[in-house]
Amino acid sequence: MSVPEQERLARVALNRLGEPGETRMTGLVAELGPVRLHELLLAETDLDGLGTDVAARLAAVDPARDLERAERIGLRFVVPGDDEWPTQLDDLAAAGSLHERGGVPVGLWVKGPFHLGGLAASVAVVGSRAATAYGDDVAGEIAATVATAGHTVVSGGAFGIDRAAHRGAVSTGAPTVAVVACGADRVYPAAHEAMFDHIARTGAVVSEAAPGCAPHRIRFLARNRLIAALSLGTVVVEAAVRSGALNTANWATRLNRTLMGVPGPVTSGSSAGVNEHLRSGTMSLVTRGADVLELVSPAGTHLVEPARAEETARDRLTPRQRQVLDAVPAASGAGSDSIARAAGLGLREVRGALGALEESGFVEGALDGWRLTELARP
Amino acid sequence: MSVPEQERLARVALNRLGEPGETRMTGLVAELGPVRLHELLLAETDLDGLGTDVAARLAAVDPARDLERAERIGLRFVVPGDDEWPTQLDDLAAAGSLHERGGVPVGLWVKGPFHLGGLAASVAVVGSRAATAYGDDVAGEIAATVATAGHTVVSGGAFGIDRAAHRGAVSTGAPTVAVVACGADRVYPAAHEAMFDHIARTGAVVSEAAPGCAPHRIRFLARNRLIAALSLGTVVVEAAVRSGALNTANWATRLNRTLMGVPGPVTSGSSAGVNEHLRSGTMSLVTRGADVLELVSPAGTHLVEPARAEETARDRLTPRQRQVLDAVPAASGAGSDSIARAAGLGLREVRGALGALEESGFVEGALDGWRLTELARP
Repeated sequence: MSVPEQERLARVALNRLGEPGETRMTGLVAELGPVRLHELLLAETDLDGLGTDVAARLAAVDPARDLERAERIGLRFVVPGDDEWPTQLDDLAAAGSLHERGGVPVGLWVKGPFHLGGLAASVAVVGSRAATAYGDDVAGEIAATVATAGHTVVSGGAFGIDRAAHRGAVSTGAPTVAVVACGADRVYPAAHEAMFDHIARTGAVVSEAAPGCAPHRIRFLARNRLIAALSLGTVVVEAAVRSGALNTANWATRLNRTLMGVPGPVTSGSSAGVNEHLRSGTMSLVTRGADVLELVSPAGTHLVEPARAEETARDRLTPRQRQVLDAVPAASGAGSDSIARAAGLGLREVRGALGALEESGFVEGALDGWRLTELARP
Repeated sequence: MSVPEQERLARVALNRLGEPGETRMTGLVAELGPVRLHELLLAETDLDGLGTDVAARLAAVDPARDLERAERIGLRFVVPGDDEWPTQLDDLAAAGSLHERGGVPVGLWVKGPFHLGGLAASVAVVGSRAATAYGDDVAGEIAATVATAGHTVVSGGAFGIDRAAHRGAVSTGAPTVAVVACGADRVYPAAHEAMFDHIARTGAVVSEAAPGCAPHRIRFLARNRLIAALSLGTVVVEAAVRSGALNTANWATRLNRTLMGVPGPVTSGSSAGVNEHLRSGTMSLVTRGADVLELVSPAGTHLVEPARAEETARDRLTPRQRQVLDAVPAASGAGSDSIARAAGLGLREVRGALGALEESGFVEGALDGWRLTELARP
């Protein structure tokens, strides 16, 4: 099944005419279909004010030429109905709006060899641009672990946690996907040119904004909903109380995606937003990639063993033996009777316990009585 | 109502004979009462092996002299039925055992002017002896905040978090209570002599262990149950995966006390035990004293406002105005028509938005068109 050319061209035109994720546009596409909506706009029908907004630009839009140009610079336009369409984005139809942005994208501009169908099991790792070394380290570890387990890492290509996440994935040789707020042909921030080049050669740079679009602030809000919607779950590594990553988190919640957060020092502003979500229970606490895998995997797989210290020889003693051992003085030898008094136990029982402790190497007989061995010292 | 002298003396004798919290002793006291149990032991009746254990020491125990001696060094023995008895300890009767320790204490040795009835609204703050500066800071802040709100801070007098908690409480001028594993007349660790002196002058040092008892390891396990049982809630600030503080936490859970944990860096071994409990949901996450107050206070009081950044002038713009503002170029002026194209909006709407933005001070008219003001720059 392929998408009719007329529909694809209508979607290109609508994509060029509207702002990414603007709810009037995505709502009208859902209601009327892209072909009918495009026709109505061309016929100068005003729809919720959209006709007025787009009138000036409508004549100048040439979707066929747009597609040609995009192809020349290595971009493709993926729309609902394409094999490659990530159908999890359709969940956006019923997820409402935030900041007047929402709904299923009219289409996605994609640069890179990665087939977007591969995002079905993806994990988003996002967070503060002003990340700390701590956040960078944890984001990198989480991204590398989930990438190694076969989950594509999605992030936003920004400074800080985003970069650490992409790098963590890249370090394992896995493809990673950057969903950006500007056109997929642009590089923002400019300092990430080499990283975007690498991602576009091995994974994909994806955008709802038409080629050439600048990274306006409001476009980040529209972009964040795609990161949340594309992924099985979103991990927020560091986020101040006012952070775009928390907008992504809100979308993940609305979309019933697994929302995870990495705790940080309560004294760190970079972790305050995440800690607050963890406190209120809207995020699940994760400490490492293995925790993330447990939460995004089918129930009963990738179970995490709680972190435990190794069992020591002392752990294998009975409580009674430990009580006797505690009563053996640290600095000198002692007789069974004096140990029994210190332990508050009967002599016969203490003698039995001392025998067992000698056998397991905790005490030894000396001239001045029972003494602790090296094993028994802390 | 006062406790009969015979019962008090029987309790002193049993306290001297048994290990703190040993379940055979606390169980038999609950079953037979202290007077009857003491009589049976004096009559050389063996009870679960307890008679054999205590036989050698039974003759040497002189409870009346023990009480006199204790009084001379400023200790009193508080038992169930005393006005001062903290009745919340009675919850231990049904809370089972850990490491063969459990049950209601036979009595408590107390040094200091603090009336133990004042522990009804107390909060325990505990954690690692090997605390980091981070843990010390947070424990101090939490202790000071809950102490200021009138909750007595209970801790164990140890190095690290315990010390930071006591100090935080002391810094507010409030009494604090140290529940220790050795006799209440002893100082352990020795380096805390000045702190224990201060606590004994202004608050209380409390122990289930008889005067003179050494701080054996197993006595810490018995002591931990008292810290959990005395308090409305326990806050664990830092704890490695193998930490006595987690034993206190287990007791708090068994006793249906509020169990709270302060998250820390996932890369910090000192926070690993707490983070693990937070991950599994057995602790409630707290980031500061105010969070603790909310959890230990009656529902609807001490509510915490989630941390939020202040609202900025930009927050008060409509999404449409923000969209237009985003489309004003950063470096030069632009005409309304060019801004409308960049924003993807109609000219009339853009002109309206620019008027509102001028009024709120975000843009200004210049020779080359609309320009951003200082207010609009990030």
